[in-house]
Amino acid sequence: MKIIVDAMGGDHAPEAPVAASVKAADELNVDIVLVGKTDAIEKELSRRPYNKDRISIAPADDVISNHEEPAKAVRSKKNASVVVAANMLKNGEGDAMLSMGNTGALLASGLLIVGRIKGVLRPALATLLPSAKGPKMLIDAGANTNCKVENLVQFAVMGSIYMKNVLSTKNPTVGLISNGEEEGKGDELTKAAYPKLKDAPINFIGNIEGRDVMEGTADVMTCDGFVGNVILKTVEGMGHVVSDKVKGIFTKGLFTKLGALFVMKGLNDFKQTMDYREYGGAPLLGTKKPVIKGHGSSDAKAVFSAIVQAKKFVETNVIDDIEKNINGMEEEING
Amino acid sequence: MKIIVDAMGGDHAPEAPVAASVKAADELNVDIVLVGKTDAIEKELSRRPYNKDRISIAPADDVISNHEEPAKAVRSKKNASVVVAANMLKNGEGDAMLSMGNTGALLASGLLIVGRIKGVLRPALATLLPSAKGPKMLIDAGANTNCKVENLVQFAVMGSIYMKNVLSTKNPTVGLISNGEEEGKGDELTKAAYPKLKDAPINFIGNIEGRDVMEGTADVMTCDGFVGNVILKTVEGMGHVVSDKVKGIFTKGLFTKLGALFVMKGLNDFKQTMDYREYGGAPLLGTKKPVIKGHGSSDAKAVFSAIVQAKKFVETNVIDDIEKNINGMEEEING
Repeated sequence: MKIIVDAMGGDHAPEAPVAASVKAADELNVDIVLVGKTDAIEKELSRRPYNKDRISIAPADDVISNHEEPAKAVRSKKNASVVVAANMLKNGEGDAMLSMGNTGALLASGLLIVGRIKGVLRPALATLLPSAKGPKMLIDAGANTNCKVENLVQFAVMGSIYMKNVLSTKNPTVGLISNGEEEGKGDELTKAAYPKLKDAPINFIGNIEGRDVMEGTADVMTCDGFVGNVILKTVEGMGHVVSDKVKGIFTKGLFTKLGALFVMKGLNDFKQTMDYREYGGAPLLGTKKPVIKGHGSSDAKAVFSAIVQAKKFVETNVIDDIEKNINGMEEEING
Repeated sequence: MKIIVDAMGGDHAPEAPVAASVKAADELNVDIVLVGKTDAIEKELSRRPYNKDRISIAPADDVISNHEEPAKAVRSKKNASVVVAANMLKNGEGDAMLSMGNTGALLASGLLIVGRIKGVLRPALATLLPSAKGPKMLIDAGANTNCKVENLVQFAVMGSIYMKNVLSTKNPTVGLISNGEEEGKGDELTKAAYPKLKDAPINFIGNIEGRDVMEGTADVMTCDGFVGNVILKTVEGMGHVVSDKVKGIFTKGLFTKLGALFVMKGLNDFKQTMDYREYGGAPLLGTKKPVIKGHGSSDAKAVFSAIVQAKKFVETNVIDDIEKNINGMEEEING
């Protein structure tokens, strides 16, 4: 298996993608092709021993920054690392791709270059969020705004397959993000989606609320990408503020510093539960080949988790299962 | 000034509303009328010394529970405490009303009985959320779904007046909750609202994201009530999960219990920052008289904060200012 890694994307590129790729080549029985500026990648590789049989470089001299208009940049910058990576994936020069760079550019590359699975109306970004009951999936976490009922249903189906195959969740539960638990609650979109989700081949448990996100009430949480993006960033932002506050408590004086020593292990366990780096990246579900978005602030550990995830994504045939299920639903609806 | 308190609403009724009212009558120079079942209220009052000149009872034998359909219950249960309270407010038998009960029933009572300020299209629930920079306002936090551009603009105007008058925030900043900071980001509603907010008589700072909620980037955050409700409950849910985890860390063993002693003060400061009880209730903005929703789980301290807030709401002429501003905007638009 060969994973295509965008070596230029993210806050810690190329160091983090290269270091994680070297470790993955050693430990995961995968080949890696690093896409980006040859000089920069070679310089990073030269800093550590690495498996030359498993790691190769695909040159790409351009980079799409976080401030560029994604679809436009993908169309015009043919030699940007993310564009080159997507074309390689499309042409079968790798089995999955991973980028920590501009989210919009990765989504556009997935949509415009890799292409949609037949029957999938809109691919969706599926993020794993920490919860009191382990990682749960939020889909769509920001790829699509102004969704229609059919989109939310497809998100739920694709998310369920991913949780079942990649995270080994048995019969994953699906909740519809709404502003109340009762069936009658919601806005126009969610009220219309409720009965369709009830009829879909998923384990639908009804509406869930914002409080259910961290409580982990549902394995898969389906919503419009506008709402999903707001939830994801609210949780991330709150995580930062809470961490800062807790850190502040422990660095205030000698006594509290001593206190910190006593509770260090517990705090580290807690930090680990809430740490996105443990959960790998966010898969884009609905494209013809596996595309994964790593967090922009990923360090080498986080990139490695995302490579582990990319490998499982390929091995567990998520894409075949999505295709079968989506087309099965269409046949059911059409006769 | 006389505050009308629904003595039957909330998880700790009638104990919490009665205890808080007794304290308020003693300390805040306000009269209180407690609305609800006379026996239950008298029993609570008999447990403590109270100022008989300032505290009276208005009998109401019915209660609307959290499981009833709000608008229907408000229309049919003429003798429910929240309905009696709203009618008293409408008839000038008090200057503001407060309820910790069924949110929908309070909103319906505000809308159907107290009535809208002339020019206000939809009253909105305005919640104060803790942030790294102190309490900030989320409006609409759940009263309205499927909002239109004009609603978001009015929410921003009303929220700004409240922050300025009641929280003494100078020239409050307004952010539009969206899925990206750039002007072009958003769903259909927020993209259309952006230029209108720019033109409104407010200190508009553009789009804000989920991460800005806890960072406190804007004093007023305007959004559709579906999105606001999801944000509010996500923050509340995360607060619970984090508190439980942190508490768990400190009760695991002797060493960590000792650690807890050292950091207790810091933890208490932190808890206080995140404590909704410090911030009073959520005002319903846009009704002809001040209506305040207290949190359902309010204890006496939280109810007292909400009474403090109700008093300021009246004293600072929020409603007159909303009426002037909304009508001023209409005149500007209409010529």
